[in-house]
Amino acid sequence: MAKKYVYFFGGEKADGNGGMKNLLGGKGANLAEMAGHKDLRLPVPPGFTITTEVCTYYYNNKKSYPEGIKQQLAQAMKKVEKLMGKKFGDAGNPLLVSVRSGARKSMPGMMETVLNVGLTTKTIPGLIKQTQGNERFVYDAYRRLIMMYSDVVMEKAAGIELKDDESGIRKQLEKIMSGMKKNKGITSDVDLDAEDLKKLCELFKQRVKEALKKDFPDNADAQLWGGIGAVFSSWNGKRAISYRRIEGIPDEWGTAVNVQTMVFGNLGSSSATGVGFTRNPGNGENQFYGEYLINAQGEDVVAGIRTPAPINRYSQSEHNKDLPVLEIEMPKIYSQLVSIRNRLERHYHDMQDIEFTIENNRLFMLQTRMGKRNGPAAVRMAYEMYKSKMISDKEAVSRVTPDQLDELLHPIIDPAAEKKQQPLVKGLPAGPGGASGQIVFSAVDAVKWAKEGKTVILVREETNPEDVEGMRAAVAILTARGGMTSHAALVARGWGKCCVVGCGSLSVDYERKQLSVDNKTLNEGDWITLNGSKGTVYEGRLPMISASEENKVLNDFLKICDRIRKLKVRTNADTPEDSRRALAFGAEGIGLFRTEHMFYGKGADKPLFYLRKMIMSVDVSERSKALEELFPFVKSDIKKTLEVMQGLPVTIRLLDPPLHEFVPREQEQRAELANSLNINIEKLNKRADSLHESNPMMGHRGVRLGVTYPEISRMQIRAILEAAAELLKQGLKVNPEIMIPVVGEVGELQHQFVVAKEVYQEVLKKYNLKKVPHSFGTMIEIPRAALLADRLATVAEFFSFGTNDLTQMGFGFSRDDLGAFLPDYLKSGILSDDPFQTIDQAGIGQLIEMGINRGRKARPGLKVGICGEHGGDPRSIDFCHRAGMDYVSCSPFRIPIARLAAAQAVLK
Amino acid sequence: MAKKYVYFFGGEKADGNGGMKNLLGGKGANLAEMAGHKDLRLPVPPGFTITTEVCTYYYNNKKSYPEGIKQQLAQAMKKVEKLMGKKFGDAGNPLLVSVRSGARKSMPGMMETVLNVGLTTKTIPGLIKQTQGNERFVYDAYRRLIMMYSDVVMEKAAGIELKDDESGIRKQLEKIMSGMKKNKGITSDVDLDAEDLKKLCELFKQRVKEALKKDFPDNADAQLWGGIGAVFSSWNGKRAISYRRIEGIPDEWGTAVNVQTMVFGNLGSSSATGVGFTRNPGNGENQFYGEYLINAQGEDVVAGIRTPAPINRYSQSEHNKDLPVLEIEMPKIYSQLVSIRNRLERHYHDMQDIEFTIENNRLFMLQTRMGKRNGPAAVRMAYEMYKSKMISDKEAVSRVTPDQLDELLHPIIDPAAEKKQQPLVKGLPAGPGGASGQIVFSAVDAVKWAKEGKTVILVREETNPEDVEGMRAAVAILTARGGMTSHAALVARGWGKCCVVGCGSLSVDYERKQLSVDNKTLNEGDWITLNGSKGTVYEGRLPMISASEENKVLNDFLKICDRIRKLKVRTNADTPEDSRRALAFGAEGIGLFRTEHMFYGKGADKPLFYLRKMIMSVDVSERSKALEELFPFVKSDIKKTLEVMQGLPVTIRLLDPPLHEFVPREQEQRAELANSLNINIEKLNKRADSLHESNPMMGHRGVRLGVTYPEISRMQIRAILEAAAELLKQGLKVNPEIMIPVVGEVGELQHQFVVAKEVYQEVLKKYNLKKVPHSFGTMIEIPRAALLADRLATVAEFFSFGTNDLTQMGFGFSRDDLGAFLPDYLKSGILSDDPFQTIDQAGIGQLIEMGINRGRKARPGLKVGICGEHGGDPRSIDFCHRAGMDYVSCSPFRIPIARLAAAQAVLK
Repeated sequence: MAKKYVYFFGGEKADGNGGMKNLLGGKGANLAEMAGHKDLRLPVPPGFTITTEVCTYYYNNKKSYPEGIKQQLAQAMKKVEKLMGKKFGDAGNPLLVSVRSGARKSMPGMMETVLNVGLTTKTIPGLIKQTQGNERFVYDAYRRLIMMYSDVVMEKAAGIELKDDESGIRKQLEKIMSGMKKNKGITSDVDLDAEDLKKLCELFKQRVKEALKKDFPDNADAQLWGGIGAVFSSWNGKRAISYRRIEGIPDEWGTAVNVQTMVFGNLGSSSATGVGFTRNPGNGENQFYGEYLINAQGEDVVAGIRTPAPINRYSQSEHNKDLPVLEIEMPKIYSQLVSIRNRLERHYHDMQDIEFTIENNRLFMLQTRMGKRNGPAAVRMAYEMYKSKMISDKEAVSRVTPDQLDELLHPIIDPAAEKKQQPLVKGLPAGPGGASGQIVFSAVDAVKWAKEGKTVILVREETNPEDVEGMRAAVAILTARGGMTSHAALVARGWGKCCVVGCGSLSVDYERKQLSVDNKTLNEGDWITLNGSKGTVYEGRLPMISASEENKVLNDFLKICDRIRKLKVRTNADTPEDSRRALAFGAEGIGLFRTEHMFYGKGADKPLFYLRKMIMSVDVSERSKALEELFPFVKSDIKKTLEVMQGLPVTIRLLDPPLHEFVPREQEQRAELANSLNINIEKLNKRADSLHESNPMMGHRGVRLGVTYPEISRMQIRAILEAAAELLKQGLKVNPEIMIPVVGEVGELQHQFVVAKEVYQEVLKKYNLKKVPHSFGTMIEIPRAALLADRLATVAEFFSFGTNDLTQMGFGFSRDDLGAFLPDYLKSGILSDDPFQTIDQAGIGQLIEMGINRGRKARPGLKVGICGEHGGDPRSIDFCHRAGMDYVSCSPFRIPIARLAAAQAVLK
Repeated sequence: MAKKYVYFFGGEKADGNGGMKNLLGGKGANLAEMAGHKDLRLPVPPGFTITTEVCTYYYNNKKSYPEGIKQQLAQAMKKVEKLMGKKFGDAGNPLLVSVRSGARKSMPGMMETVLNVGLTTKTIPGLIKQTQGNERFVYDAYRRLIMMYSDVVMEKAAGIELKDDESGIRKQLEKIMSGMKKNKGITSDVDLDAEDLKKLCELFKQRVKEALKKDFPDNADAQLWGGIGAVFSSWNGKRAISYRRIEGIPDEWGTAVNVQTMVFGNLGSSSATGVGFTRNPGNGENQFYGEYLINAQGEDVVAGIRTPAPINRYSQSEHNKDLPVLEIEMPKIYSQLVSIRNRLERHYHDMQDIEFTIENNRLFMLQTRMGKRNGPAAVRMAYEMYKSKMISDKEAVSRVTPDQLDELLHPIIDPAAEKKQQPLVKGLPAGPGGASGQIVFSAVDAVKWAKEGKTVILVREETNPEDVEGMRAAVAILTARGGMTSHAALVARGWGKCCVVGCGSLSVDYERKQLSVDNKTLNEGDWITLNGSKGTVYEGRLPMISASEENKVLNDFLKICDRIRKLKVRTNADTPEDSRRALAFGAEGIGLFRTEHMFYGKGADKPLFYLRKMIMSVDVSERSKALEELFPFVKSDIKKTLEVMQGLPVTIRLLDPPLHEFVPREQEQRAELANSLNINIEKLNKRADSLHESNPMMGHRGVRLGVTYPEISRMQIRAILEAAAELLKQGLKVNPEIMIPVVGEVGELQHQFVVAKEVYQEVLKKYNLKKVPHSFGTMIEIPRAALLADRLATVAEFFSFGTNDLTQMGFGFSRDDLGAFLPDYLKSGILSDDPFQTIDQAGIGQLIEMGINRGRKARPGLKVGICGEHGGDPRSIDFCHRAGMDYVSCSPFRIPIARLAAAQAVLK
């Protein structure tokens, strides 16, 4: 027997089921599940799915089909015909079908669809009969078929080059249609009557033949196979490939094809079509949310051409509040939908994205799938489903991706500033957060300007799949038309990108590159600011603030994460302000406090002067004197942060950069410095030049400074311990950890440990204390340190992996000089990731694992963490968990993500 | 029973034996062996050894002695007294003893000795009686005792600060003695008669009491214990500590003390004292070699105060040819000595260094030990002893240290130039090779000048242990007095340092800092040149040439090594000349041929120009054009070396340095370049500046250039394969190995391998060949490469460890910037060695072992070598052997050392 290529569904039965996504695609599997699963048995229009294996076969065999498929298809079609009591291609009682794509993973709008397949000169009369003589509907359906089919099958799939906007067949046909409307003096399609449409169909067919040198097929089977082929072809269309590249979908997956009975939402005022979400995908509220259009086909909703009406009061908004509510218009249908909605959530334990059609007061479910949601919605749904026991804590944690969480942490417009500002225009809140950018009016310009380093907002009448790359390049998207389920909204939500759609009062002039609202006009390059969470648009640049730490649902959700995760989460912070913010985000300590940070930024003038004085010293006594002057600044700096952290561990790294980093390079500044240090400029130049290094990354820095100038370490350790002692004396808790950087050999640690012990005794004596809690540890950032971690652990009480430098030295990659070749490496696939973004587990990961295992062998219970930038990267956090670290440390804003990623690591 | 602290020897019996060096010291063990071993039973003056454990006890217990030692010493002394028929401290028939140090390892002249112990006012008459009334001898012995004892025991060991030249007690006593001689109008000590000496002894004792506030001890036991304590104390004297630091002798070893019956070589003309070597320590000839002084004590020979006479004709030289030969003067004694010499070599299977004394025509053997020898002697002895079956091949190989071998490879004066030159003066050839340097006249100046980077030759009347550090700092040593066994000769020979001693006609004026020969005068800072192998001294700087490859004994010796070693030895060479030299030294291939070398040095103008043109190219087509122009130079360069190597493997490394290394830095040169490239200087500057890197070591170099600009690799690979193909066509053998540098990821190798495969096919076609032998491999110099060696080995057919870069990145040490901290690291002992001199086995060694094991796991039989500078370092070679490498590669001059070290590694 031949392999099964065609899977039937319908009439509460199905050959497949929801688990067969790889074979049937997401849509096909769900149709099977909806139709066939005993808990659901939804009113799905019957049809069948042609498997993804056929797609693979199609591409491997010069676009031909496997043997036996025709017979299987015919059999499935028979079942459909039987259920519907109609016959495909039959003159008297014709069955019409849709032909749609359906890949494993949803690729909204990226592939082709053909509707009304089976409508021919032969079947038209039968359909007119079926629709009680609704000729207008039938010829409208026919003209839609011709437009869609000639574009998708006859032009695109056939590879005919008419594709630019003006010459494409679709545009040509649209022009004929507008011409007719203009001649008749009407503006809306619905004002064309049956005769107009009948005439239009003839004009369309003539033009198709002229332009494409081929007759429009007047045979149902030919139409069907043409449609199937076009869907398979569209898998390798330019848009689909570009989308796959962005989303990381493998080319070899292929798409399935779903052939399904046509049901019509456009059969008059008792018909409609709609889409919905079982919960609000924009904020996660547990409310049925949806939109519909009376007397319309499904693509009218998705395309955003007409503003859809709300299905219920909850779905009402400023811009659709005057439109008829389904719940009121068709209460029975609505309650049937609500019941389906509840069944779906019970069955799938997750929010579903559904499509439905009402044909003459009869409800059909066209699709259900896991609903895309933005970050805030993902967090809220996960938390509430967990609270209502729909899902477990582990399930809840795995429902939110780190990227989604990141959306909650996106910058927003400063509310104070926003309050004072009058919006330019209002639309739908389609993507989270706030964004300011310069206006551009085409995807091409968005990409171009972004490449030039500009921050742009893409403004379009509406977006379409051709715009995807431009949408990617923009920081935000603004459209004049379309609803929450329009292309722009779907895409932006998927990416968590700030987006406002459906600003009805906005008009866009592509030619002049202008947008206007009322009598206000803005030009290309002007700045605007969007609030994607509210749907408001402002002129100019509004100040942004980081996402609020005060998000109760987020905090509750993160507490679930906290109960699951094993890794502690600390922060990298150098100031009391950062430390406070980090605490609010849930930091459990500071993993990296860089002492040198006090020499940068505001208020650094004085300490920097003493540091430079120290650097310019020529002997120990001069140096010690300068260090003595520097000491109070260092102590006070450390003390403030220790105080904020209230006894949580604070890892303080001793001076790390080479000294020449602090010496001015320009002669003018040097002269000034020489003057204020009261030394000769030649002397200063000589000393400064002697500090120059060929490879400063691997030069005289970190512990190497501490060994050469023990007095520098001594001063810093004294500052740490005295700060701690003084806070202790005030009755506060302290937990400083002294961390030595750039260590490669245990002798270095021993050397510094001796200094630390001496200073400790002095401090105890000075403050008359028995003990000042502290520990002594090392960075592991030199490859040799990882190799000899067992030796280091004999002295170090903790390890902190400095994965930035470990990656630099492990790869021999200078991060400053990487730009010359890393792009080539990523492009050619030699490296799959920038190793400074996510830990190179294959190579550098070995050093980390070695370091941990050997360190713990020598000192069981050795505390181990990471303080490189990788500490905020979810994949790296997963690795750190598996490697057995005690904590990760990251920037304050990454803490929530780290908490989530640490919990997800446990679940893997 | 108490522990045994005192070991008796004498009368053909001994408590200990030669194997007890750790306990009895080298001298004590050998005395026991000489006295007691059945094959030897030499006429050793009886005595006993106090063990090194007593020294340890002495230092651990505030300079006190363990219980029971006094009784054990008394018992041993009784045995000695019985054998000698004399009694220690006895008035009538007194026994005198010497008290000498003796550590595990010989430390010539670094510790103290006291002779004639037991001579007191009470025993003087008895000794006069014993010596048939030789009052002069007895008071001479007494004044020697007082001088030595007051200096060594009463001043130095007591820690009294009279130590500078003028105020020291020894100097004071010497002045009294010179004063007496002056008063009497005589110049030589021997002209002082018994009465003079008797008076002198009284003056000495008075001065001792005045200067040291203590009576000179007039009790034999007190003298004995004082002497023992002084020897133990001298273990921690400044000189001994300094010597131990240089020689790497642990402080905790301690010294033994040997108390031995005094025998007198100064009892008149039938008495003598001498030293000898069973073979010539200067060139290794199998001839008994020695010197003696009639009527003298042993220290007179070693101190080099009088020029000693030869023991036989063989030992005659220019400067002692008129002195009486022992073989003629005392034929019986001489033949007794020859017989002992033969017994010693048969027993020890090695060259011995002996001390003997003739007391009234009776021979006593005072010491025998392994004789120090210079490199040429070590090689010759090892080879000849092996040939005569005295030792095995393995023994022979282990007899020569790599440092000794190095001496044979030392530069020598160009013989052509030397022939034309008249020597300034002639002396004894005491240290190998030739050397030029500036004259200094004190050890202090030698150290100071050397620190300033000057090359100095230390010129002294004679040297003493205080001069050791200065001798170390000098490139060569020249003395006016002393023989082949003088201090200077012994030390220089041990170090293999160029040295000429005993230039009788040379006079040295320390005050004026001048030396003069006849009426020629040279000043401090003037250049001289020594031939340490001939004993000649020349004015000015003579040209040096490298040691000859034409050394038959060396070649024969190295062939023994070759039969034992497992490691192959290749060379790092970039030119046909170097390759030829390396072949002469025994190279078995080239381990590193650096393609970029052709752009440095003479004749590089043209290829460098095209290289720069290539670097300044802005696109592939410009670059390819420049590469095409460069190609013939690269091909011809490679071809010449492949031709010389006649089918031996030649590993050719593709371009390694970052491109900016080849771009001139100065504006003037850049302008010139811009002009000749016919481009705008701004354009050139822009391009040159864009190449600048923060850390070039870890920047855009090696394979990273090859990935970014595959056309560069393509050109080089084509040059290699075309060169090989053309030689093949000429009927020659070739074996090029294409090596990719700076690899960290297998994708890099795959990328380059594709290029290589393409080029290979093109070359086969162009030359109409079926095959061009070659292989494709990688450097392992990035830590990640070692970690992922299993992946790399799927593509690479060979690995070559670039341990310079591996050390740089493994340690995070930039070699260019190391000077700022490495000295501190070595001084404080954080690192015991410069890791760029010898492989850091603990850390970098792990990466190497990992790399080899993982590489071989993926590709059994993977060829592995090393091409870093460590390839010529004996300790590193030993490591490479243990790690399982196939070959090491080093500079041509290090090849013999590598051959030896590789053999010794097998024997370990």
